[in-house]
Formats: sequence, C-alpha cells, structure tokens
Amino acid sequence: MESIDKVSGTFGKRPIEPKANVSSAVIRRLPRYHRCLGDLLRDGKLRISSAELSAIMDITASQIRQDLNCFGGFGQQGYGYNIKFLYNKISELLGVNESYNAVIIGAGKLGRALAATHMFERRGVNRLAMFDVDPTVIGTRIYDVPVYSVDQLGDFCREHNVHIGVLTVPKEAAYDVASIITEAGVKGIWNFANMELKLDNPDVIVENIHLGDSLMTLCYEIKTANEKREKDE
Amino acid sequence: MESIDKVSGTFGKRPIEPKANVSSAVIRRLPRYHRCLGDLLRDGKLRISSAELSAIMDITASQIRQDLNCFGGFGQQGYGYNIKFLYNKISELLGVNESYNAVIIGAGKLGRALAATHMFERRGVNRLAMFDVDPTVIGTRIYDVPVYSVDQLGDFCREHNVHIGVLTVPKEAAYDVASIITEAGVKGIWNFANMELKLDNPDVIVENIHLGDSLMTLCYEIKTANEKREKDE
Repeated sequence: MESIDKVSGTFGKRPIEPKANVSSAVIRRLPRYHRCLGDLLRDGKLRISSAELSAIMDITASQIRQDLNCFGGFGQQGYGYNIKFLYNKISELLGVNESYNAVIIGAGKLGRALAATHMFERRGVNRLAMFDVDPTVIGTRIYDVPVYSVDQLGDFCREHNVHIGVLTVPKEAAYDVASIITEAGVKGIWNFANMELKLDNPDVIVENIHLGDSLMTLCYEIKTANEKREKDE
Repeated sequence: MESIDKVSGTFGKRPIEPKANVSSAVIRRLPRYHRCLGDLLRDGKLRISSAELSAIMDITASQIRQDLNCFGGFGQQGYGYNIKFLYNKISELLGVNESYNAVIIGAGKLGRALAATHMFERRGVNRLAMFDVDPTVIGTRIYDVPVYSVDQLGDFCREHNVHIGVLTVPKEAAYDVASIITEAGVKGIWNFANMELKLDNPDVIVENIHLGDSLMTLCYEIKTANEKREKDE
C-alpha cells in the first residue's frame, strides 16, 4: 500500500504539523534524513524517489514513506520528493533555524575539539562561550570562543539567554554544573560526562553521549564475527 | 512471571553462550549495563536486584531480566544479581578483555581529543599509533601516541595486527582510508567522518558516529517542548 500523501508535497501550502506522539525512533531518524538530503542537494540533485532514498539510507522505502508521513507527508506519487522542499521542511521541524545559544562547560581536550568543529554553526547553534575552573585557560580564547570562569556560568546563561549547555566536565562535577545552568534557564543539556544525567526537572531535555558504549559495541561485534568465522572454518 | 534463570548465576559453571540472534537493541544496552555495574562496584556494592537496577537504568525490571536471560541469565531469585560476577561476564561477552589493537587515522582536533581519553584503555583497546597527511605532525607524538604518515598505514596495520581503525578524516577521504585498512586486515571501523560508510566487505564491522545528529535531536526536543509550553500557557 502506498502511503504517500497526494495532497501536500511541493504544492501544498498548509502548515506541516507533526502528528502528536511521533515515536522517538522516527525523530532519531530525522537528522539522518536531513544529512542525506543535504548531501544530495550539494550534489545538485533535485528530486528523489523513496526507493532511491531507501538505497542510500538503508531504510526500506515503505518505512521512509511512513516516517515522512508522520510529519504531514511531502511526496507526490510518481514524481518522488522535491529534495530542497523536504530538506527545508525537515530543517524547520528539527529547529535548525531557531538560532539556539550554547555554552561549553569544560575546556579540556573534548571541549576544545567540540569548540573547533563546524557542527554547531551548521545546525544553527551559536557557541557563545566556554567555562572552566583552570585559571590558566580562563580569559583565553579557544578557536575564537572566549573562556570564562565557572563562577560566571549562571549569570552568563541568564544574561545571554543560553538554551543549550554542552557538558564536557568530569562526571563528579556533572550534577553541580547541570543544576547551575538549569536554574539559569538552560533547556537542553548535551552531556559528554560519561554518566547518565537524570534531572528532576521535566522541562530540561538531556541528551547523553556515551562514546565508550559505541566502542564497546564495536568490540563486541568484532568478537562475535571472529567467533563465527572460527566456527565456520 | 519471573524469568530469572535459577540454575546458573554465581554457582553455575557452564559457559555463557549468547543465544543466536540476540537483537541489536539488547547488544546496544550491554555497554550501559557494563558501565552502571562498574559504577556500583566502585561504590562497593555487592548485590543488586533487577528492581534496583531498573531504577538506576530507567529500564523496566522485566526488560532487565529478559536482557540478561538472552545471555544465559545470571540472577538468583530472591538474592538478586552478584554485581562482580555480572560485570565480569558482561566484560567477557563484550570482548573487553580481548586486547584489540587500534589506530587513529586523522590527527586533527577530534583525533587528538580521542587519543587523549582513557576510553580505549578502559575497554582493553590499545591505541598503537595515529596517521595523518600533514608533514608538520608526522613524526611527533600526541599524548604519547606516535604519529606516522598515511603512506605507512597499510603496512603498519598488517605488521601490528590492527583490529580497529578510528576514522577522524574528512569525509572525502573516508572510503580511501577504509579500503587501505580493510585490505590490511582491520575488522572494525569506528567512523567519525560524518558520513554513512557502507562497505561491500561483510566481514568488516562499521560503527558510524554522528555527533551532529545527536545535537539536532536535542534542538528538536527543545523546540517541541517550547511549543508545548507555549500552547499550554
């Protein structure tokens, strides 16, 4: 069964309203759609069918139609999707154009590496400042981002309307820092402190990053594949 | 229904053999179990019930019992799990003690930040070397890891039995590097190049990391929560 919405698409003018309760699995796929469509746009492609997108993304075509349908649907049967339209709509849905303000707390190696990337700007997030406790880095600039003392963190967040705090502090410091910034109005925490940050405040979104977990999964899969090969031989 | 395996557990001596086709969702949760149990061990705890573990991990107790059962089960009804035993078994399952060799390709900011972490050693992975094309870093050491020219990459991997390649190269270079290292016997790629690396070789495991996708998900959730708040007001 084709689940493409024939009414909307490039010609539809009605606002795209996500249906209530879109599953988090779908939401997690949206940035991938955004990334793939961005690459296609840069390659000069204009339209794509769900079958072509399926081959690129390793998601079934019917899953793709279903996913995009959750957000009102953008396809036109027989014509495929207008890539630019879809890209812009997904940008809008994701809040890429919201121009959020972020600070990085922890000017260590990971904090510096994050400050150096174009990841923030590309997604409409402004890196306003970094914060640390080390007097030798306070007052310097790292990749043009000013570093301030953690003592100034709460006031800075309040004064500059900071939406996102990026935590690259030792795990022992994570709850203290989280409490300072959430009291100062920060609404989202991108947590690299390698612990599950759980806050009582339901208004604050926490995205925990565990790079080590991903490395472990890789080791597990290498080991399992090895064992399988040895068995087969 | 209690699904705890009463036969195995701390007393069982039979080898733990993962059941065939353990779902990837379960496998993805194993590193989290490993991390949480490691924290509990360091806090001096000896035993834990599935209910207590459930509260820490935000996974239902029945899901926990089911997950651990996939791998033969380690619990004893009424006594809970022996944390040390469970930790060691999960370490073994994950291949944490396999002592894999890794190289980091790309000595830029992210490559350096990864080289600096304790993430590898903690998971039994040896960072043997880094590789780059920049003559000003080739021949230096970064956090005590030697940096060589990419020209030496294939030979190095063959000579040192490298299992894992960590890719922090620009996305345009990712396929070339992947092909050099897989021809040299590398079995797993931890890919930070911000593109979906898809290899024809089914023997090579690829773990794609997309930090930007996670940042986008966070922005999306902040935006959705804002919209909900505005509607409620």
